[in-house]
Amino acid sequence: MTGGPPEPRNVWVDGRLVPASGPHLSVTDRGFQLGDGIFETLRARGGHATELPEHLLRLRHSADGLDIDLPPGLEERIAAGIRDLLEAEGLAGPDGDASIRITVSRGAIPGRGLLPTVAGIPPTVVIQAWPVTPPPPSHLTEGLHVAASTIRRDPENPLVALKTTSRADYVHARLEARRVGADDAVFLTIDGYLSEATTANVFLVRGDELATPALACAILPGTTRSLVLAWAGRAGLRATEGWLTTRDLAEADEAFLCSSVAGILPITSFDGRPVGTGRPGPVTLRAREAREAFIRDSGDA
Amino acid sequence: MTGGPPEPRNVWVDGRLVPASGPHLSVTDRGFQLGDGIFETLRARGGHATELPEHLLRLRHSADGLDIDLPPGLEERIAAGIRDLLEAEGLAGPDGDASIRITVSRGAIPGRGLLPTVAGIPPTVVIQAWPVTPPPPSHLTEGLHVAASTIRRDPENPLVALKTTSRADYVHARLEARRVGADDAVFLTIDGYLSEATTANVFLVRGDELATPALACAILPGTTRSLVLAWAGRAGLRATEGWLTTRDLAEADEAFLCSSVAGILPITSFDGRPVGTGRPGPVTLRAREAREAFIRDSGDA
Repeated sequence: MTGGPPEPRNVWVDGRLVPASGPHLSVTDRGFQLGDGIFETLRARGGHATELPEHLLRLRHSADGLDIDLPPGLEERIAAGIRDLLEAEGLAGPDGDASIRITVSRGAIPGRGLLPTVAGIPPTVVIQAWPVTPPPPSHLTEGLHVAASTIRRDPENPLVALKTTSRADYVHARLEARRVGADDAVFLTIDGYLSEATTANVFLVRGDELATPALACAILPGTTRSLVLAWAGRAGLRATEGWLTTRDLAEADEAFLCSSVAGILPITSFDGRPVGTGRPGPVTLRAREAREAFIRDSGDA
Repeated sequence: MTGGPPEPRNVWVDGRLVPASGPHLSVTDRGFQLGDGIFETLRARGGHATELPEHLLRLRHSADGLDIDLPPGLEERIAAGIRDLLEAEGLAGPDGDASIRITVSRGAIPGRGLLPTVAGIPPTVVIQAWPVTPPPPSHLTEGLHVAASTIRRDPENPLVALKTTSRADYVHARLEARRVGADDAVFLTIDGYLSEATTANVFLVRGDELATPALACAILPGTTRSLVLAWAGRAGLRATEGWLTTRDLAEADEAFLCSSVAGILPITSFDGRPVGTGRPGPVTLRAREAREAFIRDSGDA
């Protein structure tokens, strides 16, 4: 771990700050047994969690989709937990810049099998926080190399737009991308349309058009995606959501990824071939700056 | 929990028997964070784990598919762990009948993100054991009602035949089946062919043919499936593996599910309509008896 960022000293588990060293969870936790959980990742500046209501709304939406009962008032407890954790980790000051993960599993339910054997057991709720590590400088100056994943996404899967902790497909896609020297993988739908990257949405710049896969393309409705779509008009760009192909990506003037924690990062090659000029493009860099300003302003608010 | 089977007192975690009450795991365990793990379930009679080498082989196959490094000698440690756990749980005697779950995650790796941030951290290995609860009598006398899941399986997904702990699709399918009054769900492939049930393979009886979806139909290669295919010849039946449809299931003389823990259970209705006579069929009951005898004989061996 030498040279890496410091590891957290605390985590928040079911209402309490506890030492990060653990142990914290039962092996019977359905998050561990079955990936039977959901999560959100977000950013916090100056102790303020950016777009927390949007993330908590999406968390509840994911819970509903998996029939996980979230107790009433959980949102308020999570908001307080984030404040306590940022404070304990020294990330709540004016310069604090943190990434936060909220993980909720169906809970530690004894017995075996896919159906919960006992009713009334509360979900497990965990909050973790880390100092934000800036992206490697090359990600901004050179951009990201992305590769198409061999894993296809089914737009008709009822869980496809939920942020579940059943993430083996995504882990596999990232390992697969690394093997071919790529920084990230882009999923295609079973019909061959562009979907999303493993932790980010995809945007293409084509003239004055800012195009992104529609919600029907098996994507998570990213909060930063919404922000970029709203920004496009102010930046004199025409935002479109639709069905895009790998050819559209290969032939775009610029392309970028966006996510809550990493913000906006240029895509400069796809499956080994340059996208646009092969350098980060001007629209991408403007979008990145607008997003970072939004995060800073949230922290100041 | 009143009326249910007794809960385990011990679990085996990373080489040691520990109290089942826990806690055992760090929140950073990638099994909890990302469903980044694999598992096997099997049965043990008289302290003897049935088909343990086959299950350990499939565990290693699943680990390879997810790039999880299993340390050398892990199989022997798991075999010893099963013996110790069955002994501690009072399930090792001549009448002991247990179901066992082996769960392996990529380990408690600090940091966030899909790519493991640190190399060299060992996987988390957990063994659990429960007394076998016989199926509800109605499952044998009336048979199971199964329903087609809305979740489709992609035969080209490189993880589709691995037993990963990213099981949200399966949990959802079971909850969905329960909502329509079914006992289990059957997945179809994206091309509309029969695949498998949530924890079992599917067989159809058509005259003297015993038909089951081919390995290419996005199924787990079940150890009991292999056993049934081998049994067919001895029972005067012609075993076939191929592409079957929901119509084939609806029109079969008999149908059944098979899995390591529950053995063979009749399917007597599909999407609300009777299969065959709507009663457990003679071939199904013979197959079940042959399988149970095999388990008893393994225990006696």
